[in-house]
Amino acid sequence: MARSDAVLDHSHDPEAKSWIATANEAGNPFPVQNLPFGVYRKIGSADAFRACSAVGNSVIDLAAVDADYGPNLNGLAGEGHATWRSLRHKLFALLTDTSRKSQTTRYLHDRSEVDLGLPIQCPNFTDFYTSYFHAFNAGSLFRPDAPMTPNFKWLPIAYHGRASSVVVSGSEIRRPRGQRIVPGDTSPTYGPSLWLDYEVELGLVMGPGNSIGETVSVEDAESHIFGVVLLNDWSARDIQAFEYDPLGPFLAKSFATTISPWIVTMDALAPFRSPAFTRFAGDPDCPPHLDSSRNQASGHLDIQVEAYLNEPESAERARLSRTSYNTSYWTPAQLVAHHTSAGCPLVPGDILGTGTISGPTPEEAGTLLELSHAAQNPIDLASGNTRTFLEDGDSVSLSGACSRPGFASIGFGEASGRILPAHAA
Amino acid sequence: MARSDAVLDHSHDPEAKSWIATANEAGNPFPVQNLPFGVYRKIGSADAFRACSAVGNSVIDLAAVDADYGPNLNGLAGEGHATWRSLRHKLFALLTDTSRKSQTTRYLHDRSEVDLGLPIQCPNFTDFYTSYFHAFNAGSLFRPDAPMTPNFKWLPIAYHGRASSVVVSGSEIRRPRGQRIVPGDTSPTYGPSLWLDYEVELGLVMGPGNSIGETVSVEDAESHIFGVVLLNDWSARDIQAFEYDPLGPFLAKSFATTISPWIVTMDALAPFRSPAFTRFAGDPDCPPHLDSSRNQASGHLDIQVEAYLNEPESAERARLSRTSYNTSYWTPAQLVAHHTSAGCPLVPGDILGTGTISGPTPEEAGTLLELSHAAQNPIDLASGNTRTFLEDGDSVSLSGACSRPGFASIGFGEASGRILPAHAA
Repeated sequence: MARSDAVLDHSHDPEAKSWIATANEAGNPFPVQNLPFGVYRKIGSADAFRACSAVGNSVIDLAAVDADYGPNLNGLAGEGHATWRSLRHKLFALLTDTSRKSQTTRYLHDRSEVDLGLPIQCPNFTDFYTSYFHAFNAGSLFRPDAPMTPNFKWLPIAYHGRASSVVVSGSEIRRPRGQRIVPGDTSPTYGPSLWLDYEVELGLVMGPGNSIGETVSVEDAESHIFGVVLLNDWSARDIQAFEYDPLGPFLAKSFATTISPWIVTMDALAPFRSPAFTRFAGDPDCPPHLDSSRNQASGHLDIQVEAYLNEPESAERARLSRTSYNTSYWTPAQLVAHHTSAGCPLVPGDILGTGTISGPTPEEAGTLLELSHAAQNPIDLASGNTRTFLEDGDSVSLSGACSRPGFASIGFGEASGRILPAHAA
Repeated sequence: MARSDAVLDHSHDPEAKSWIATANEAGNPFPVQNLPFGVYRKIGSADAFRACSAVGNSVIDLAAVDADYGPNLNGLAGEGHATWRSLRHKLFALLTDTSRKSQTTRYLHDRSEVDLGLPIQCPNFTDFYTSYFHAFNAGSLFRPDAPMTPNFKWLPIAYHGRASSVVVSGSEIRRPRGQRIVPGDTSPTYGPSLWLDYEVELGLVMGPGNSIGETVSVEDAESHIFGVVLLNDWSARDIQAFEYDPLGPFLAKSFATTISPWIVTMDALAPFRSPAFTRFAGDPDCPPHLDSSRNQASGHLDIQVEAYLNEPESAERARLSRTSYNTSYWTPAQLVAHHTSAGCPLVPGDILGTGTISGPTPEEAGTLLELSHAAQNPIDLASGNTRTFLEDGDSVSLSGACSRPGFASIGFGEASGRILPAHAA
C-alpha cells in the first residue's frame, strides 16, 4: 500500500535476465533492473567521456540505443523524466533480448577496461542536514546545552556547498591545512587538519529544475530528480569548529566532496519506496507546503548505505557505518520543494546532498565524529589499530544497496577516496 | 609610498582624452582610463551576447581589437592578467588615437541601443563577511550578548552562496516566500518575507584560479582577480533569522543576487590602492599565511560605494548608504588566499562577494537591517514616507566610484533591481 505510487513496470520484473551473464549473478549491483547512467572512456585515454550505463561487469555505450551525450550527463539531466524512462526501457529491451546480442557487442566494454568520469559537471552543490539522529549526535558534541536548533522539525536545514570541489570516486584527497585550535592551545594556528572525517550521504542529482522566482511543489518535486549517487562530504572537524560560527561551514568542507560514478534513477528505485519518517510525539505538524499524502505514504527511499575503512597496506577493510536513508527526517521531495520555496532556481546537474545519514543506534552513525565521540573514544579496528579520525593513507569507501523480497536487488557501486598527506608548509 | 606597488602606466595618464567626447565629460564613469569589460547585444535582440568595453556613453565591441569572446567573459577571465592588460592597452591606444576613429565606428554602439548581459556565468559564488562595522552592527541585533564571534579577526569569514541566482542589473526581483516567525506569533508560517533588505557589496571576479588541493599565496592572489563588480546580495532577514542556525544563510539569500554589468579591472583600479585596514589595539596579529608587506602597504581598494532607493512612482531617489570599501577588515588578496588555503579550487568567473560594506559611522551602514535597527527606527525619506525594509515596487540601485587627486575618476555603473510582489500562495 505504502508503495502504491511507485510506478512498477516490466523493467522491474525480477525474473528478467540479461544475455550478459554477470548481470544475473547474485550480489552483482548492476542487474538489468538497475541500469544507472554514467560516463566512461578507455583507461588512460584522453578522449572525451561518453554516456553509458552499467550492466553486470560491463558498461554499455548509450549509442547502443541511439543516444548521444557527453562529456557529462547535464544535458540528459535537463531533458526530463520521459527521456530517462525511454532510455531505460530501450536498454532493458536490448539487454534482455538475446537476438540483439551480436549487434550490440561493439558498444560493450568490460568495466576493468574503462575509466568512469564525473557523471555531471555540478553547477551547484547544496548540502542538507536531514538526519535527526546525526543532528542530535553532532549537536550534542558541539552545542551540548542545546543540540537541536528549533528550526530542525519545521524545514530541512541546508547550506550551500562548494560545486568546484566535487570529484568522482577514486580521486585522491589531499589533507587540508587550515586554522584550528590544537588541543592545549588557546588561539588558532594554520596547519594540517587533525580531525579529518568522512560523511555518509546520498546526493540527489537534479533534472529540469525551475526558473528564478518560481517554486516546485512537493507533489511535482520528484519529476525534477534525475537520480541518486553516493556522496562523501569529507570534513575537517577542527577547521569547521573554528570557522563555522556564524555563517556555517566553509573551508572545512570545500576541499573535496566525492560522488559515485553511477546515477541510479528514480525509476530503478521505484520498488524501494518507503513511508516518510514518522515524526516524534510532540513534533509540530509538517508545514502544508512541504506535505502531501503521497509523500507521507511512499516519499522515502529504503537505501542501505555503508562506509568502509581501508588502512594503508592492509587488505582488510573495516565497516564503520551502516544504516538506511529512510531514517532521515525529510524526504527527497521535501528537499526539492523547500529548496525552491523562496524562488531559488535549480539547474540540471545540481546535487542536493542529503546530509550525513546516521540511524537511531550508535552503530549506525555516519561519521567518525560521532563514532569516536569527538576523539574521546577511539574505534578498535580488526587489525588491532585504532582510529579517532582519518590518517594519511586511509581509504574510505561508501556503498549503497536496495533489496526487497520479490524484487531484484540493486547497488550503487562505490564512492571511494584515499587520504594524501598535507602539503608541507 | 603606500601605493608604490600598484602598476601605473600610460593608460592611467589623467590628461589622456578619447575621440569619443562623452568619455571626457566630468562625471562620466567610463573615461578612457577605466575600460571595464562586459557583454552586450542590440536591444531586444535574441543574438548571443558579445564581449565589449565601455567608453563614455558608448560600448565598443572587442572585435575592434581583434578579440573574440562571448556570450560571457569566463574565457577571458581564465586567460590571465597578461591578456587583460594587453586588451586594455590596445583599447586605450585605439580610443585615444583620432586617426583610428573612422575605422572603429562600426564597432561602437550607443549605450542606449544595447542590452548589457550577465558578464560572467558564475560557476561558484562565495560571500564573505569582512566589514567589522557591519559584523558588529548585525551581530548586536541578532546576538546582542556576543555580537562578534572569536574567529572574525583571525580569518575572513565566508560562506558559499548560490551561483544560479546571480543576475545582472535591471533584472526584477521577486519577493520571496519563506518560513518566518511573524511578530506576535510563536511558530513559523510560510509567507512573503516581511523584512526584505539589500546589501551593499563588491564582487571580486576570479581569473585563472587554482587546482584542487593547491593554494594561492597572499603575494600571488591579485593575479587571480580579473576585476570588480557591484553586488547586491538581496536578503530576507526574517527568513534568515529562522533558518540560519546552525549552518548559515540559505533561502534568505539564494532567491537573487544582483551584479553590475561591468567588470572594472585591477589595472584600472591601480591608482586607488590604499593600505590594509588598521587592526584595533589588542587585536591578534594577522596570521602569517594571510600577511605580506605589500598587502599591508597597498592591499586595499578605496572604492566609494553607495545605495539609492527609488520609491514606486517617485522621480526622486534617496541615498541610503555611502562608505568606502577600504573600511573592511580584510583585503581582496586575503580573501583569495584564505579561500584557497585548504585547497578549494577557484574557477574562472567565480565571484567572491566582499560581504556588506558598512563604514564606522551609523550613516555608513550598508543594509536596512542596520539603518532601521531591525525595523525599530523607520527611516524618513524626502517624500515624507518612511521605510524599515523594502516595499513592493521599490528599486534599489548600487553605484561605485574611485577618485584621487591627480587621476581621472572612474565609476562602476550600477547594480539595480525592482521588487515585484510575492506570488500568491
